[in-house]
Amino acid sequence: MKPSLTPYKGARDFYPEDKQRQKWLFDVWRKVVERYGYQEYDAPILEPTSLYTMKGSQEIVNEQTYTFTDRGDRSVTIRTEMTPSVSRMIAGRRQELAYPARWYSIPNVWRYERTQRGRLREFWQLNVDMFGVDSIAAELEMLQIADDLMRAFHAKRKDYVIKLNSRQLVNAALTSYCGLSIDKGSKLVRLIDRIHKMSTTEFVAEVQLITEDVSVSKRVIDLIKAKTVDMLPAELHGHPSLVSLQKLLKDARSYGITNIEFDITLMRGFDYYTDIVFEVFDTDPENNRSMFGGGRYDGLVAQFGVEPVPTVGFGMGDVTFMNFLESHKLVKKLPPPCEVVMIVREKDTIASAQRIAQDLREMGMKLAVDISGSKFDKQFKNAVKSGANYVIVVGEEEIKNEVFTLKDLRSGSEQKHSMQRIVSIVKDHRRA
Amino acid sequence: MKPSLTPYKGARDFYPEDKQRQKWLFDVWRKVVERYGYQEYDAPILEPTSLYTMKGSQEIVNEQTYTFTDRGDRSVTIRTEMTPSVSRMIAGRRQELAYPARWYSIPNVWRYERTQRGRLREFWQLNVDMFGVDSIAAELEMLQIADDLMRAFHAKRKDYVIKLNSRQLVNAALTSYCGLSIDKGSKLVRLIDRIHKMSTTEFVAEVQLITEDVSVSKRVIDLIKAKTVDMLPAELHGHPSLVSLQKLLKDARSYGITNIEFDITLMRGFDYYTDIVFEVFDTDPENNRSMFGGGRYDGLVAQFGVEPVPTVGFGMGDVTFMNFLESHKLVKKLPPPCEVVMIVREKDTIASAQRIAQDLREMGMKLAVDISGSKFDKQFKNAVKSGANYVIVVGEEEIKNEVFTLKDLRSGSEQKHSMQRIVSIVKDHRRA
Repeated sequence: MKPSLTPYKGARDFYPEDKQRQKWLFDVWRKVVERYGYQEYDAPILEPTSLYTMKGSQEIVNEQTYTFTDRGDRSVTIRTEMTPSVSRMIAGRRQELAYPARWYSIPNVWRYERTQRGRLREFWQLNVDMFGVDSIAAELEMLQIADDLMRAFHAKRKDYVIKLNSRQLVNAALTSYCGLSIDKGSKLVRLIDRIHKMSTTEFVAEVQLITEDVSVSKRVIDLIKAKTVDMLPAELHGHPSLVSLQKLLKDARSYGITNIEFDITLMRGFDYYTDIVFEVFDTDPENNRSMFGGGRYDGLVAQFGVEPVPTVGFGMGDVTFMNFLESHKLVKKLPPPCEVVMIVREKDTIASAQRIAQDLREMGMKLAVDISGSKFDKQFKNAVKSGANYVIVVGEEEIKNEVFTLKDLRSGSEQKHSMQRIVSIVKDHRRA
Repeated sequence: MKPSLTPYKGARDFYPEDKQRQKWLFDVWRKVVERYGYQEYDAPILEPTSLYTMKGSQEIVNEQTYTFTDRGDRSVTIRTEMTPSVSRMIAGRRQELAYPARWYSIPNVWRYERTQRGRLREFWQLNVDMFGVDSIAAELEMLQIADDLMRAFHAKRKDYVIKLNSRQLVNAALTSYCGLSIDKGSKLVRLIDRIHKMSTTEFVAEVQLITEDVSVSKRVIDLIKAKTVDMLPAELHGHPSLVSLQKLLKDARSYGITNIEFDITLMRGFDYYTDIVFEVFDTDPENNRSMFGGGRYDGLVAQFGVEPVPTVGFGMGDVTFMNFLESHKLVKKLPPPCEVVMIVREKDTIASAQRIAQDLREMGMKLAVDISGSKFDKQFKNAVKSGANYVIVVGEEEIKNEVFTLKDLRSGSEQKHSMQRIVSIVKDHRRA
């Protein structure tokens, strides 16, 4: 049977121009987080399934994983996210590490989902995590980095908004203020997490189903109407979680992050978040969706049977983020991957041309020699097709006289020079 | 159940120091191949199983793959090598591409194997391939790159040897010279591929089992004793495959690749090789093993039902190669991932310290602020532990006077400066 020409559904082939664009994205990500002292780590893409059956990822494990049994009868899962792996790594070396430990990674992850715009089965995800800090100074740094990441791509403040919430505040509001049990509170958290996927009527009906009490329902519905911290019920003012949240909003704004706002309905799916959560949204009305987010998850490292390590972190997917960059026209025009193609006049000169090319490479030029032995015209056409900026022509004649033709494919201009001179022309243009 | 602290068997967690070393390896790989005009591509790690049931990878598919059925009832396989994926990609765009197409990739691949030194279940592999050139000018470039890769890590010529063979020459020798059928010839190719894993007696017995003729067996055994091209039977001299091989040896040597030699027993496992094959060996008697290799595989693209595209390429694994670098002491000592740690005297000063840090980052410094709020001594200890070169001390006093303490952790020297001055000191030392 003839194998298929298309890749597996929901996954992408990266042709050189696609890969170049992805590398540009990752390079900017790396540059930003490394400025803050974050160090890159990595973990295997295949993990024991038990890693994902911990608290927090149940839905994904049950419905969206690629899980199977290996030839040694172990249940394994292709990673769906990096957080469990990094928690394991921290737990494994918790005593040797220098804290705060600042770590990042850009893994590919797999989820068996229905594919649609912005949602594929394989995607890459920048993961930024800080371990060992239990104060909101850690959250503040996460917000700074999130904001810096947006600005490194020249996004304007009006193009995105950072929404902030506190799980502890929500818990306090649902239990102390609304008077719900912890169990019903959890159910409501899950419900509120889906609020933007249903109508108000549906939401109210679901709230009543959970609370079974009209006055409690009314409190819940009033609560989620609070668009600012000031609009929260008076009973919650002064609650430690609210004080922290207010300080965080104030500090972030003092750093110039003016596009940050409180959102009581922001939950983020994962159960493992313990306190502050945040999410960055595209403000474009056509594409008003969540781009990335994170929060504090103090309990995950301790699930490996060791003492807890306070943690904040966030993850940022390549597909969603690239959609944002595209729709806001922020994708950089990239230089051709190979700047110079050497065309060889005669077949017998190929070996000599390669020797000359080697000298040029050692001088720092990226140079592909057309060793096809095709006719001159065909070689020239292929050089143009490759997107190169320059063509150098080499033949017996040129080698004898040590003078070569350099053609600038953008301007069409053609000059004869020594190789030394050609190197400096190409390098000068590169800087320009 | 408590999840395990160790990664899946045969796979590695990359702690920041491990990842830094891996990135150094990959960066050198990239630098070398990009000089030759190779462009990076990528493909999904999960492929339809049918991609691997083509000619050439049978043994791996049957015994070493991670193959399973997805939730949509499709059989999928975690990639064991990149060659089938890249062949699919070329087949898919064969008409739009500019030839010669020079492509490279550094994928992770998975094989279910017994783990041992130099052999893990997950490893990364540099793949370098050229499409569209049917002359040995392509093989010559592969040898140049292979050699350049070794020398980019400062390996000496005596540290490695490049072995070269021709599958066509072997086929001609086994059929025309030894008089074997094509079928028996194939069996012998497979046997010779394993020659270094058995004793001479075992080998001879196996040859006799296949040939069933004493005089034929003698010819085969004589043949594989030929240590140089000159030692080959006279009947083979002048055969086109031998002429090509001789030219390739000569050209490579003329480029200074003096550590190249003919080896009639070199087959390389995969069935898809059609002509020249080569392999690079460590010459260290303690670790005299194959490091990487490749060859010509002209038939693979055509298996997708399209016209054939001539191809040469090779693959180089990270584990084997890193073993070579380690045993020859060629692993570079890498700089600390975060050069500066800022220590904050008072908890209340953290937010101001971060603001100052932000300015320094914009001036190009990689800087981690200790926002733990720990005691000064503990912060200092953690800075030393982190491997940073410098510590900057910030407190209320320092912010008021705009004078900060810079401590060089390597020399122990301590000076007071403005932030401007501190940036230039750190940057100057970086260049030194």
